Amino acid sequence: MSVYKIRFGTPEAFVPSRFAPAPRVPVAEGMPDCLAGISFSAGARGVKITLSLAEDVSLYGFGLQLKSFRQNGKKKTIRPNADPKSDSGDSHAPVPFLVTTAGFGLYVDTARYCDFYCNLTAKPAVKPKDAAERMDMNDMIGGNAGNLLVVEIPYASGVDLYCITGERILDIVSQYNLLSGGGCMPPLWGLGNFYRCDMTFRDEQILGLAKQFRELHIPCDIIGLEPGWQTHAYSCSYRWDPQRFPNPAETVAELKKDGFHVNLWEHAFTHPTAEKYEELLPCAGEHLVWQGLVPDLSLEEAQKIFTEMQQPLIDMGIDGFKLDECDGSDFTGGWTFPNSDTFPSGMDGEQYHSLFGLLYAKTMEKALGNTRTLSQVRNMGALAASYPFVLYSDLYGHREFLTGLVNAGFAGLLWSPEVRHAENAEDLLRRIQSVIFSPQALVNAFYLPNHPWVQHDCVEGARELFRLRMSLLPYLYTAFYDYKTTGKPPVRALVCDYQNEKEAHDCSTQWLFGDSLIVAPLIYPEKERDVWLPPGEWYDFFTGERMEGGTHHVVTDGIPVYVKGGTLLPFAQPVEYLLPDTRFEITLRAYGDCKAAVCRLVEDDGETHSASYRLLEVTTERYETDSFRYRVAGVEQY
Amino acid sequence: MSVYKIRFGTPEAFVPSRFAPAPRVPVAEGMPDCLAGISFSAGARGVKITLSLAEDVSLYGFGLQLKSFRQNGKKKTIRPNADPKSDSGDSHAPVPFLVTTAGFGLYVDTARYCDFYCNLTAKPAVKPKDAAERMDMNDMIGGNAGNLLVVEIPYASGVDLYCITGERILDIVSQYNLLSGGGCMPPLWGLGNFYRCDMTFRDEQILGLAKQFRELHIPCDIIGLEPGWQTHAYSCSYRWDPQRFPNPAETVAELKKDGFHVNLWEHAFTHPTAEKYEELLPCAGEHLVWQGLVPDLSLEEAQKIFTEMQQPLIDMGIDGFKLDECDGSDFTGGWTFPNSDTFPSGMDGEQYHSLFGLLYAKTMEKALGNTRTLSQVRNMGALAASYPFVLYSDLYGHREFLTGLVNAGFAGLLWSPEVRHAENAEDLLRRIQSVIFSPQALVNAFYLPNHPWVQHDCVEGARELFRLRMSLLPYLYTAFYDYKTTGKPPVRALVCDYQNEKEAHDCSTQWLFGDSLIVAPLIYPEKERDVWLPPGEWYDFFTGERMEGGTHHVVTDGIPVYVKGGTLLPFAQPVEYLLPDTRFEITLRAYGDCKAAVCRLVEDDGETHSASYRLLEVTTERYETDSFRYRVAGVEQY
Repeated sequence: MSVYKIRFGTPEAFVPSRFAPAPRVPVAEGMPDCLAGISFSAGARGVKITLSLAEDVSLYGFGLQLKSFRQNGKKKTIRPNADPKSDSGDSHAPVPFLVTTAGFGLYVDTARYCDFYCNLTAKPAVKPKDAAERMDMNDMIGGNAGNLLVVEIPYASGVDLYCITGERILDIVSQYNLLSGGGCMPPLWGLGNFYRCDMTFRDEQILGLAKQFRELHIPCDIIGLEPGWQTHAYSCSYRWDPQRFPNPAETVAELKKDGFHVNLWEHAFTHPTAEKYEELLPCAGEHLVWQGLVPDLSLEEAQKIFTEMQQPLIDMGIDGFKLDECDGSDFTGGWTFPNSDTFPSGMDGEQYHSLFGLLYAKTMEKALGNTRTLSQVRNMGALAASYPFVLYSDLYGHREFLTGLVNAGFAGLLWSPEVRHAENAEDLLRRIQSVIFSPQALVNAFYLPNHPWVQHDCVEGARELFRLRMSLLPYLYTAFYDYKTTGKPPVRALVCDYQNEKEAHDCSTQWLFGDSLIVAPLIYPEKERDVWLPPGEWYDFFTGERMEGGTHHVVTDGIPVYVKGGTLLPFAQPVEYLLPDTRFEITLRAYGDCKAAVCRLVEDDGETHSASYRLLEVTTERYETDSFRYRVAGVEQY
Repeated sequence: MSVYKIRFGTPEAFVPSRFAPAPRVPVAEGMPDCLAGISFSAGARGVKITLSLAEDVSLYGFGLQLKSFRQNGKKKTIRPNADPKSDSGDSHAPVPFLVTTAGFGLYVDTARYCDFYCNLTAKPAVKPKDAAERMDMNDMIGGNAGNLLVVEIPYASGVDLYCITGERILDIVSQYNLLSGGGCMPPLWGLGNFYRCDMTFRDEQILGLAKQFRELHIPCDIIGLEPGWQTHAYSCSYRWDPQRFPNPAETVAELKKDGFHVNLWEHAFTHPTAEKYEELLPCAGEHLVWQGLVPDLSLEEAQKIFTEMQQPLIDMGIDGFKLDECDGSDFTGGWTFPNSDTFPSGMDGEQYHSLFGLLYAKTMEKALGNTRTLSQVRNMGALAASYPFVLYSDLYGHREFLTGLVNAGFAGLLWSPEVRHAENAEDLLRRIQSVIFSPQALVNAFYLPNHPWVQHDCVEGARELFRLRMSLLPYLYTAFYDYKTTGKPPVRALVCDYQNEKEAHDCSTQWLFGDSLIVAPLIYPEKERDVWLPPGEWYDFFTGERMEGGTHHVVTDGIPVYVKGGTLLPFAQPVEYLLPDTRFEITLRAYGDCKAAVCRLVEDDGETHSASYRLLEVTTERYETDSFRYRVAGVEQY
C-alpha cells in the first residue's frame, strides 16, 4: 500500500490538492512498477496520458456516477452538472479518480473537465491476420472494447498523477481518502433521521409538523427548511422572510427544545438584497446567476464576507445547511456561469465549476466553528472526503440513486438516496428501506404538506424502519470513526472488499453498510430478487437464519440485510432523537462463532470538533463498560 | 442583405470554410453597424466573443436541435453526438450559426466544440438600487435571462466571424446557404417515397417486399438495405454477404427494373476484411472504432482509397447511401474516437468529429460522379447546404423529430422525421402525415419483416398519404430548385418569413413546406390542436375552405395543411415511381385571386449533375406547355 506522485510538466496553479487538507499518508515521488508503459504528452490541447491495462481488469470510480457501475468500455468526461441525464460522466460530483482490480488506482489532480477513454484500441501497424468475416447481428451495437486508457486534460501543460497501490480496492480508496486528511466525522445526531419540509411552510406549520413526529413516535433529529424561509431565493438574500418567520430565533429555539436540529436551504448566488452584496461585488465572477453574484470562495476575503452573512443564522442555532445549485446546469434553463469566465482569484469558470461545491462546503464548515455538522451539498469534487456534506440530486430514480450510493464510496463522497417521491405506500417504504442504510437518512418532502407516511397510510412501517436506523446508530458511528481515522468508507460496493470474487465485479445493487452488513434492497414494484453473498457464513439480519455464500433468491416486503459470520453487532434500543447525554442501551448480537470477536464503540461528546474520542472494545466475555454513552445490557446469540 | 467577414487574430487551419464549395454571394470584409459593441479576446482557453443583444430579440439556430426552438436563455455547446438526450446543444448536426430577429445572423467559422451562452448578465459595477425583496415561489426555477451573448471557441487563437444581414430570417438563411454554394439539388426520384427494410432480410425477401409495394399500389422509389447486406458490419467490410446476397448485381438490377433505386447502409469505420484496409492504414486516425480504421477523409488519398471500395457498389447501380455513425457517441457504449487524437492531415479528433459527416458525404457524392442522389447521413456541420444528404436519428420521439424539422431549416440542413416506430395504426398514420411534408419521405422499418401498414391494417390510409406526396412532387422539386439557386430552404419555420408577427416567434409545431403551404401536424394521441396562420387569406388544402389569419382550433384525423391565398399550386396525378421520362399530369389549383399568380415548374433530366434546367412559368391564362415533364390539364378554382 503506497501513494506515488508522478509529476509531468508544470501543473496548473488551481488544482484540487491546493485546497485539500494535508495528506495523512506518505506520498512517494516516482513511478510505481504497475504504471510501466504509461506515457505523457503535452500539446496545444493540453496533457494526454496513455496507459495499457490488462484484459480482465475491472474499472470503477469517477465520483458520483448515477448511470453505470463498472466503467470498462466507457468514455467519461469529468464535468459537474445539475442534470446528469446520460452516462457521459456528467455528474453532481464527478471525480478524476478511478480504481482498478489490478492493484492500483489513479487520481489526476486537475480541476479541468478531463476525458477518460476506458475503451480504446490503437491502430495496428499492419493489417491483422485473424479478422473474422461474418458479422454477428446481435453484436452490432455496443461500444469500443479495447484496453487502452487515454486521459486528456484540456488546457494544462502539466499535471500531477497520483498512483495508489493496494491489494484490495478498499485499501486503495482508504488511502485516497487519507490523501485529503481522512473521512469526515459527523455529529452523532447527524446520523439520525432528517426531514425536509414543504417549501411553502411558515413557522407554525413547521412546528406542527415537528410535533407530529413526536406524537407518531417516528424518530427524527433534523428538520430542513426549503427556499421559502428567505426574503429572496434564486438568488439568495440569506435573510428570514418576516411574514412567514416573524421570530425565527424563537422558532429555532422551540425546535431545539424538542430535540430537533435545523438545517437551512441556500445557494451561494447572492441577491442584491443580501446584507453584504456590496462588499462581495469585487470578490465575484464576471457574470451573474439568477441576478446574483457568484462569490469566489477560494479567496479568504470572499469567505469572510460570505460567512458574515451566515453568522446571524449560526448564532441562532442553525447547525446544518443544504448548499444547493453549486453544480450548475447546462440543460435546465442554462443557469450557470460560463466556463470562460475569469474569477478574481485567477481561476477560470471551468476550474471554479469543479471546485465550487467543495469551496462552498469548506467555507460553511469553517463558519460553523467548533460545531460538527452533517449537511448537504449538490456539488463535490476530488479530495473531498473530509467534508461532512452529503450529496443529493433532484432526479428521482430509485435505481439510479442506489447506483450513486455504491459508486460514491469509490471516491471519498457521501451520497443519500433521498426519499423524495413515492407512488404509493409500498414505493415509499421501499425507498425508506434504502435510505436508512445510507450515510444520511433523509426524507425530502419539499412539496408535501403532510407527512408522507400519513398520506400513504403506512405510519407503522415507516416508524419501524426509522427506529431500525436508530438501533444501528452506534454501529454506523464506529464506521464513520473508521472513515475519519483510516479512510475506510462507511458505505461501499462489495467489490471494494471482495474483488477476487468475479460476482462482485458487476454487483451494483448491493452494498456494504459498515464492515459487517450487506444490504440488498428491492425497488418498487419488485417483490423478489437475487442476492449474492461472498464466500463464508452469513446471517439474515431479521430472521437470524444462517446462510452460505453464493446466490440466493429472496422474496420479501422487507429489505434483505445480511450479517457476516463472526460479527458482534451492537444493536441499540432506539431513541427518538439524540441529546448530548443520550446513553444507548445496547444488545450485542453475536452471529456464529464470536469468541474472538470484538465490538468497537466510539465515545465522544458527539457534537464538537474538539471532542476527545475513546474507542471501547467489547467482547461477549467482557461487555460491562463505564461509558457514559453506552450500556451493554447483554448478548444475543444467532 | 450583405455578408460580412470579420477576422480576429489568426484563425485555425481546419475550419468548415476550408472544405466548403465557393461562396455564391459577395463577402465584404469589415464590421457591420449591427455588431457595434462586439468584443473579441484571446487567451489560454481560446477565443471569446461578447455581444449585447436588444431585449426583445429572438434567437434561433445551432443546427439540428431536437429539444428546443427559440434559443433565448440557453447555453448551447456545438458538439456532434449520436444520442442528444438533453437540450445542451449536443446534436447529430450542431452548427455554430445563429439567426436573430434583429436583422442579422452570426456564423462562427470553427470546427471546435464552441459554447454559446445566450443568457448572460454582466456583474454590475455597483449594487443595483431597484432589487425586489420578495421572492415569487413560482419563479424560483428557470434560468438566466440576460441578453449578453458570449461565445467561447476553445483552443483557437483567432477566428473568422461572419455576420449576415437581412430583413427577414429567410434572407439571412438564404445567404448563409449561398455562402457555401447554395442548396443541394436532389434527383426527382429522390423526393419520392423511401423505405428501409428489415436488417435481417436476404435478397428474396427484399424482392418480395418490393413487389408488395406495387401490388398494394403504394408509391415507392427507393429501397434501403440495413447493415445485414455486408460480410461484416460494425465495423464495415463494404462487401456483399454471399449467403444472403449471392447475386447482388442481379438483385439490384431486378429492383431497378421495377422502378426502385437502392440505398445501402454503411459507416466509414473500416474493418480489416475490407478490400483496401492495408492502403487505408496510413490515412487513418490513431485509434480504432469497433476495430475499424477511422479514415481521414480530408485527405485526397483517403478519399480515393475509400471511393475504390465503394466503386463496385456504384457500378452495379447503387445510387444512394446511408452514412451511419459518423456522429460518434459518448453515451451508448462510448464508441467514438478521442477528441485528443491526431489525424494524418493534422486535424485533431475534436475537429475531425465536427467535419467527419460532411467530409464523408462529400466523398460519397464525388464517388457517385454525375449521378445525383438524395442520401442519408447522421452527422453534418456548418456550410453543408450543398450536400444532398438528409439527417436522421435513432431517437424516436415524434415531437422531437418535428422540432428538428423546423430547426434544420435555420442552418442549411435537411432532416427527415423518419417513420420508425408506431404504437398502432393511428400513430403510424400521424407519423406518415408528418414525413410526407418533409425533405425525405422515409419509412425505416429495420426491425419489421412486414410492411407496417399491413401489420397495423391501415393500407388505404397510408396509400393515400404517399400518393399525396407524389402529387406534390413538382411543387417540392421547384422548392429545391430555389434552394439550389437562391439558398431558400424548402422546409422552414414560420418565423423565417413572418418574424414581424409575435406569434411566429414560438411557433415550433408548424412549418412552411415550400413558399405556399403551412403544415400543422398532430402527434398521436392528439385529436385536435390550435393552428396559427399569418395575417392574410389562407385555404384549407383538403376542403378548400377559406380562412383568415389568426389562431384556429382544428379537430381532425388528417393533417392540417393550408395554402396561402394567391397561390397557383401544381397538383400532379400521383405516379407510383419516377422514371427518367415520367410526365406529370398537372392540375393547377388556384387559391383565391390568382390572376397575377405564376406557377413555376422546373424541367430537367431529373437525374444528373450535368442536367440543364428550364424554368416554366405557368398562369391560369397560359398553361399549355411543351414540357416533356409536365402536362397541365386544367385549373381548379378554390
